[in-house]
Amino acid sequence: MKNRPKPVLKLKRLGIDTYKEPVIYMRQDCHVCRAEGFEVQARLLVTVNGKSLTATLNMIHNGILKPGHAALSEYAWSKLGAREGDSIHLSHAPSVHSLGHVRSKIFGNVLDSEQLGAIVKDIVAGHYSDIHISSFLTACAGSRLNEKEIVALTRAMVESGDRLDWGRKLVVDKHCVGGLPGNRTTPIVVAIIAAHGLTMPKTSSRAITSPAGTADTMEVLAPVDLNLKTMRRVVEKENGCIVWGGSVSISPADDLLIRVEKALDLDSEGQLVASVLSKKIAAGSSHVLIDMPVGPTAKIRTLQMAETLSRYLEQTGAALGISVRVHTSDGSQPVGRGIGPALEARDLVSVLRNESAAPQDLRERALDLAGHILEFSPGVKSGQGRKMALGILEDGRAWKKFQAICEAQGGLRDIPKPKNTQIIEADRAGEVVAIDNRRIARVAKLAGAPSDKVAGVDLHAPVGTKINKGQPLFTVHAESPGELDYALGYLEGQQGIISIADEAAA
Amino acid sequence: MKNRPKPVLKLKRLGIDTYKEPVIYMRQDCHVCRAEGFEVQARLLVTVNGKSLTATLNMIHNGILKPGHAALSEYAWSKLGAREGDSIHLSHAPSVHSLGHVRSKIFGNVLDSEQLGAIVKDIVAGHYSDIHISSFLTACAGSRLNEKEIVALTRAMVESGDRLDWGRKLVVDKHCVGGLPGNRTTPIVVAIIAAHGLTMPKTSSRAITSPAGTADTMEVLAPVDLNLKTMRRVVEKENGCIVWGGSVSISPADDLLIRVEKALDLDSEGQLVASVLSKKIAAGSSHVLIDMPVGPTAKIRTLQMAETLSRYLEQTGAALGISVRVHTSDGSQPVGRGIGPALEARDLVSVLRNESAAPQDLRERALDLAGHILEFSPGVKSGQGRKMALGILEDGRAWKKFQAICEAQGGLRDIPKPKNTQIIEADRAGEVVAIDNRRIARVAKLAGAPSDKVAGVDLHAPVGTKINKGQPLFTVHAESPGELDYALGYLEGQQGIISIADEAAA
Repeated sequence: MKNRPKPVLKLKRLGIDTYKEPVIYMRQDCHVCRAEGFEVQARLLVTVNGKSLTATLNMIHNGILKPGHAALSEYAWSKLGAREGDSIHLSHAPSVHSLGHVRSKIFGNVLDSEQLGAIVKDIVAGHYSDIHISSFLTACAGSRLNEKEIVALTRAMVESGDRLDWGRKLVVDKHCVGGLPGNRTTPIVVAIIAAHGLTMPKTSSRAITSPAGTADTMEVLAPVDLNLKTMRRVVEKENGCIVWGGSVSISPADDLLIRVEKALDLDSEGQLVASVLSKKIAAGSSHVLIDMPVGPTAKIRTLQMAETLSRYLEQTGAALGISVRVHTSDGSQPVGRGIGPALEARDLVSVLRNESAAPQDLRERALDLAGHILEFSPGVKSGQGRKMALGILEDGRAWKKFQAICEAQGGLRDIPKPKNTQIIEADRAGEVVAIDNRRIARVAKLAGAPSDKVAGVDLHAPVGTKINKGQPLFTVHAESPGELDYALGYLEGQQGIISIADEAAA
Repeated sequence: MKNRPKPVLKLKRLGIDTYKEPVIYMRQDCHVCRAEGFEVQARLLVTVNGKSLTATLNMIHNGILKPGHAALSEYAWSKLGAREGDSIHLSHAPSVHSLGHVRSKIFGNVLDSEQLGAIVKDIVAGHYSDIHISSFLTACAGSRLNEKEIVALTRAMVESGDRLDWGRKLVVDKHCVGGLPGNRTTPIVVAIIAAHGLTMPKTSSRAITSPAGTADTMEVLAPVDLNLKTMRRVVEKENGCIVWGGSVSISPADDLLIRVEKALDLDSEGQLVASVLSKKIAAGSSHVLIDMPVGPTAKIRTLQMAETLSRYLEQTGAALGISVRVHTSDGSQPVGRGIGPALEARDLVSVLRNESAAPQDLRERALDLAGHILEFSPGVKSGQGRKMALGILEDGRAWKKFQAICEAQGGLRDIPKPKNTQIIEADRAGEVVAIDNRRIARVAKLAGAPSDKVAGVDLHAPVGTKINKGQPLFTVHAESPGELDYALGYLEGQQGIISIADEAAA
């Protein structure tokens, strides 16, 4: 190939964030595109410093790239560990063999473990574009995965990343399927369980579209951005932790699939089971409690859906050697009072400290879940767990353990005080009959949650509250006056976020 | 909403070509993103000068966008008719109701015309991202569309764009399903049919991944970039034309679907039927001949596949009021000699001029197809068409008509002469037993086809040729010495593009 110029370009950082889609940007008149026959939307194998991935080609018609330069989306940039000026080598992406298995699934065939394993491996290696992932998810949806396939998919997802080993026989965990706003039970549950002596190394997520994830809320009270080594030290010392899962590479396939599922608004049973259980198995859990709120506006709408899903979760867990128990709960309305990291942190500390003003619904839910988890322990009889959990909470052991965990994670922090607040009052007397969760969450986000910890909404009148005209309904909290204005501006255009009915009518 | 700054930004052209995916680029620290809660990969409704579309959000972390600015991908830019500095208004994209129908299809339900119509309408309006289109295509693949659904989908695609009316009862057309390299029969067929007096307003495509499309080849001989008015004038005068279909907006849904199908390498029966027939019906055809090459490396691999597909094509055509006939042909090897626009133009002119050196396989195929099309005419008896076609070709009427069509389209052009050529010789004696179509097409593309008209490959030794050592196998043609070098450089690293077997063995 002596006559042929090597297809090498220099990297320039344009800083374009496409989320998790690797994209390569090249000039339309680039000699490499011409020579190699690269066309817009082609899939290219991109190599930088010996690392490779597959990226989709976007062309640049303007001068934002100089001749001889190419750019990468931020995700591709960080995956390849690229630096400004690095040499970049390009070729047509090799054909992806496992896409044949996806086509086979589309045509209604059953896939074996090897085929599902190859698909998951190629997805994690970045060989699938979003278009391919969407096709795979669609082909598996609509109950088109049988029980064996769900088990094989779950196993493949576990094997796609690291797997933790805690060196203990009983390692418990919990997960909530389709969470409710304010349902921040996890830190309370971990404190109770760890105080009892069971091992509960909890990794949680940050918010993606909600005003707070458990990791965002917990970060108000202690550092959560721990590496695996520090996490281990915390768990060895205190039996439990509540850290952000993002720094531990467990079930990386799941993150890639969930992002496309979200865009499709498609959450099939098989994918849901594989997603939840692969994370738990990879995290080294032996026993998992699944909290499943059921309600007309919740993710799981009927008891029948809950039963089918429970059966899949329990059977798949059993096939992969872990014990799974599903607890259905009321999913008809939000939990607690605060929406936003600091406000939710305040609520959960208030429960742990047994304050009389603590939100009782949050407390009851945490006790139910902790009770079920305690019953995973061979020493705890069925039906005794909740009473034990109540004892651990009431006598202060849970609060003490929570403080110890926070110290071990890097130090308990004070909850920051709100800076700019505005009380929203009832414009008439009556009874609160409904709260629009979606829109109240939007107000919290417009006010700055979750990136501003203090931002959010504090609900003063849950459903059922009888109120007078002028009585506070909720308070908007923000970091800056400008953000408070944004949130209030939104409120001005909205009616009935909190519905009040005449007392006679209610 | 008096307190709330309006979410307006100024447009800046970054010139990023994402093919047909609308993307909006905003700064990560943009006050509008913050205020509205826009996150990377969100779907936004973008409004410029009163026109709107839905785009996917990419964030910019660097300084390529100034504060207060936003950018659009080239596709979104041209669809919105945007200009530098225009004001751009943004909001969350409204939820797309028809995605519920896609989910319904995923769960195995049959969709009615209204539902399929709503899906196609939303796709054309730009409300579906590639992820959504991929899901729709996957849900319909694997024989999951029944005959009624195929008819409804085809009708919806016809109605998604303009529909031509030629004011004549008999309007014929042809289409090749899964073309073969060099199979450039269309201009010959149109010339014969138009010379006979039937109306054949042919729109063709440019190459997407091949070294030449019919429009690229025809452009060597005459202008093909005609608007609808000029096209009508040509057809009224000469009964036929061969123009580029890109300037006429027929079945725009098809272009959007095909692009994702290509990425998925998924071509389901239902989509294929809807794609082919929607274009033909929208183009105003009453009678369509489908050329279907069948062979082990062709798109249609078995006669059984060909029969199933033929039935769907004929039934769907009948349901929508057009007459469809399928002609299966040999799909085992390439057709003609030249690969690349000018070389293919030379071949087809040579056939039209009845030159003795004209490629006989191309001539025979064109006569077969023209014969079948002539039989659509009430005045032509079954079995007589081919003989009539031969007469029209042999007595020079076809060549005369072709010249007249070229003149009407803007003037017959001389075929440009090759500038830089290199003959590739056989390194041993024997018989040519196979030609790798994929790799020989790659050589033609590396040499510059189709954008350089003269570039391509001229085959001198079709399968079955007995050759001596040193005898020419093929010639590479290029516009510049550099491009010739690229193509030759590629050849150096390749073995067996043309397989030669010992005469004894062959």
